[in-house]
Amino acid sequence: MNAPTGRMTDFIRKQTYETEVLQLRRRLAKVHRILTAGGMWPLTKGHASARIPGTDKVLILGHIHATGRSLDQVDVDDIVVVNLEGEWLEGEIEPVDERYLHLEIMKARPDVMSVVHAHSTYATAFGVADVNILPVGNRGAIFGPSVPILQFDRQIDTPERGRMVSDLMGKGCAVVLKNHGVAVASDSIENACITAFALEETAHLHWIAAQLGPVQRISTGEVQSVLTGARKAEFFAHAWGHYAKLDPWDGMNRPV
Amino acid sequence: MNAPTGRMTDFIRKQTYETEVLQLRRRLAKVHRILTAGGMWPLTKGHASARIPGTDKVLILGHIHATGRSLDQVDVDDIVVVNLEGEWLEGEIEPVDERYLHLEIMKARPDVMSVVHAHSTYATAFGVADVNILPVGNRGAIFGPSVPILQFDRQIDTPERGRMVSDLMGKGCAVVLKNHGVAVASDSIENACITAFALEETAHLHWIAAQLGPVQRISTGEVQSVLTGARKAEFFAHAWGHYAKLDPWDGMNRPV
Amino acid sequence: MNAPTGRMTDFIRKQTYETEVLQLRRRLAKVHRILTAGGMWPLTKGHASARIPGTDKVLILGHIHATGRSLDQVDVDDIVVVNLEGEWLEGEIEPVDERYLHLEIMKARPDVMSVVHAHSTYATAFGVADVNILPVGNRGAIFGPSVPILQFDRQIDTPERGRMVSDLMGKGCAVVLKNHGVAVASDSIENACITAFALEETAHLHWIAAQLGPVQRISTGEVQSVLTGARKAEFFAHAWGHYAKLDPWDGMNRPV
Amino acid sequence: MNAPTGRMTDFIRKQTYETEVLQLRRRLAKVHRILTAGGMWPLTKGHASARIPGTDKVLILGHIHATGRSLDQVDVDDIVVVNLEGEWLEGEIEPVDERYLHLEIMKARPDVMSVVHAHSTYATAFGVADVNILPVGNRGAIFGPSVPILQFDRQIDTPERGRMVSDLMGKGCAVVLKNHGVAVASDSIENACITAFALEETAHLHWIAAQLGPVQRISTGEVQSVLTGARKAEFFAHAWGHYAKLDPWDGMNRPV
Repeated sequence: MNAPTGRMTDFIRKQTYETEVLQLRRRLAKVHRILTAGGMWPLTKGHASARIPGTDKVLILGHIHATGRSLDQVDVDDIVVVNLEGEWLEGEIEPVDERYLHLEIMKARPDVMSVVHAHSTYATAFGVADVNILPVGNRGAIFGPSVPILQFDRQIDTPERGRMVSDLMGKGCAVVLKNHGVAVASDSIENACITAFALEETAHLHWIAAQLGPVQRISTGEVQSVLTGARKAEFFAHAWGHYAKLDPWDGMNRPV
Repeated sequence: MNAPTGRMTDFIRKQTYETEVLQLRRRLAKVHRILTAGGMWPLTKGHASARIPGTDKVLILGHIHATGRSLDQVDVDDIVVVNLEGEWLEGEIEPVDERYLHLEIMKARPDVMSVVHAHSTYATAFGVADVNILPVGNRGAIFGPSVPILQFDRQIDTPERGRMVSDLMGKGCAVVLKNHGVAVASDSIENACITAFALEETAHLHWIAAQLGPVQRISTGEVQSVLTGARKAEFFAHAWGHYAKLDPWDGMNRPV
Repeated sequence: MNAPTGRMTDFIRKQTYETEVLQLRRRLAKVHRILTAGGMWPLTKGHASARIPGTDKVLILGHIHATGRSLDQVDVDDIVVVNLEGEWLEGEIEPVDERYLHLEIMKARPDVMSVVHAHSTYATAFGVADVNILPVGNRGAIFGPSVPILQFDRQIDTPERGRMVSDLMGKGCAVVLKNHGVAVASDSIENACITAFALEETAHLHWIAAQLGPVQRISTGEVQSVLTGARKAEFFAHAWGHYAKLDPWDGMNRPV
Repeated sequence: MNAPTGRMTDFIRKQTYETEVLQLRRRLAKVHRILTAGGMWPLTKGHASARIPGTDKVLILGHIHATGRSLDQVDVDDIVVVNLEGEWLEGEIEPVDERYLHLEIMKARPDVMSVVHAHSTYATAFGVADVNILPVGNRGAIFGPSVPILQFDRQIDTPERGRMVSDLMGKGCAVVLKNHGVAVASDSIENACITAFALEETAHLHWIAAQLGPVQRISTGEVQSVLTGARKAEFFAHAWGHYAKLDPWDGMNRPV
């Protein structure tokens, strides 16, 4: 009958926040399973993260590799909470050492809500050969004008190293880490996952074409068309139905 | 006892027409599922179309991509009707934007009853490298003397752009669209599907051979032999049993 | 009580012969299923044959391709009998047109009991690029000093054309047919099957190596060691257990 | 009540030893199944061995290839015992001819507890082209500065030939045998298995990159980081969960 007391309001707000975070955890765990099933981090593994909206907190994978577990069964309890400085706030498992790769990108880019660090084969090979991946084919437009390569090839396990990745990424969505792997960033968990796949598919196509002759990138007109308005939204929306099916647990569609 | 009245004749004719169109829809839906299962349009998807014989109407895929659906479950309700000018006549889902790729080929080529637009990997790579696919191996003869490449790399979503594809195809059966995909045409739904697969297999073989040395195309005598008489019929007939099995729904053989 | 009359002996001999031929048919049908499952003749298909010991009769695949059937379900009824001149003696289905490829090799080579005509991808690519497959790796020794390439690229559907293949093969076990496929021969049905796989695996390895640097063939000492005595028998015997499992029907081991 | 007699102590010691050896046999059999499932020795097969700690005895695969058996079902009874001189001590099946490859490495390297001889495709191709595999990507650090190639291409079936492999390996963990395969060594059965996979994955990545441009190896700093302390342990521990799942029998995790 009466308006809720302040304490009640706080309770409801807390309940809502916890529901939202649980939902984010579910989506983030799912994306780990999908990236594993899709071969984006063959056994050397990787990790994805998600910013909790409106906070300086970030959900990230715990260091479950240490127990010899494969990433194909990541669940919500494997996701822990850190702040943007990398401090471990919640969760049973220590966050992954390379969390600074994720956090420094998020600090520099308020638009980035999710980061994926993968070790996809073809993209990694471009780093080994020091050749920049060009925007080619249907999935390449978002990688124009080309994907930069971090020459430093060690673990990204300090804030300073994280900033090297963040600086090189600039306003782009992908960086190749020489002899190591890739980092991609996007505005949602699912879109970061799609970007990781798109980078590998683009690298693969570039690689195939490079053995036939000089590679010709997508025209500027087409790149701009893909990156704006309805086509940008479609670029990601059309792909999710496909990748969601890779989840070994349920193949259910994108969580609302 | 009496001859059917004019109204009855009309009714029977309408029934027959609707049965034929339903059969075409079934075959067209099936071919979408087969091309998806066979990897001819990895996640960026594609579409196939079929002319309704004796009319200016064309069956084509609705824009089901917009709902995030994968093409591995296309059914008859996902197929809509347009006329050769691209106007949406029947069906619940808006026809795909790139319908003009299909329609302009059909307008220019009365012999073409079906068109497929795919994004097959190796064929697309030839466009990226600006190298023409040559007729090589067992499946290549229909692509002689070589497959032209459309330099324009944007969506084929207007009649003008559709005519660019149609003009380049000429009397051939295939065009590579730079940084985009391919368009193939044939005299039936199943044969257009087979042509899409044959183009990718030919591109793959050309690609493998090109890394060993200069590619030598099929002799003129053999090309002509494949393109005439019994061997032309066999070229398609022998292949259908194989591809029909890719259909995740039933693997049933070619519809009569 | 009495010794069997002449008529009885004839009856027993005929029974034995028919049992032997049925056994050969079973083995030959099985090898068709295995070669199909192993990808040795992608949809353009192929065929294998077997000489009936002590006769001028040969078991060979009927032209079941004409019905759109895939070769993954070949059974004994799909195998027909021809003589070495190519005349159709028994069976419901017309023998394949290219039977002369098999028969001319058998006429020239009494040691050859079985021939396989396949369209395996990598071996065919060597014909397209006009590069001879060299004996490399574990499976290559039997292909030394190198695999010849028939420049003529048309169907092998006459005795004259069959002799072109036979002449080129000489005392070897394999020929690449430019822009067409391969022919291999051996002393049993199973060994011809193994030879077809070994040729493709050797071509694949040669192809991978050729992109790193000049290909170095197996030493003469090792080639001779593989081709004589116990190691020659082992070359084939060790492999059969592996390939027999590809049979979609039973995976049973080598028939005695 | 009384302390066990000497005979009882011997009995217990023997029981413990037999339990340990059975456990080693189980792990060694499992690794054969995993290497087969992972494609490390396509049909030409291979073998793994394990030193029995504190003895000069070695567990090694029996020559089950001779019966045409595939290695995907190796069980404890297929493992036999030899001494470091290659003499057959226990087991129903004759040990493999190439046991000297294993034994000479173990004689020269007390730290080596397990050896794998495989015929993995990409690593073998580097031998065919006489190009040394470089340490690249996430799995390559243990192969620095590069993997030597044994020019001798025959069977390693004598102690002298085994010493050629052992001498070339030196303090490293891998050797490529030209036109033959590879030999890898490590401090446990599971780590030798992981090393065999890592060598093939590194060769594959090197091969992909080599077609884009000159291959750049991992920096010395990163190599040293991977080879020392916690990261060295993690290099193997993180991988085992992944490979253990390849076992067709159970997918159970690393035996304690």
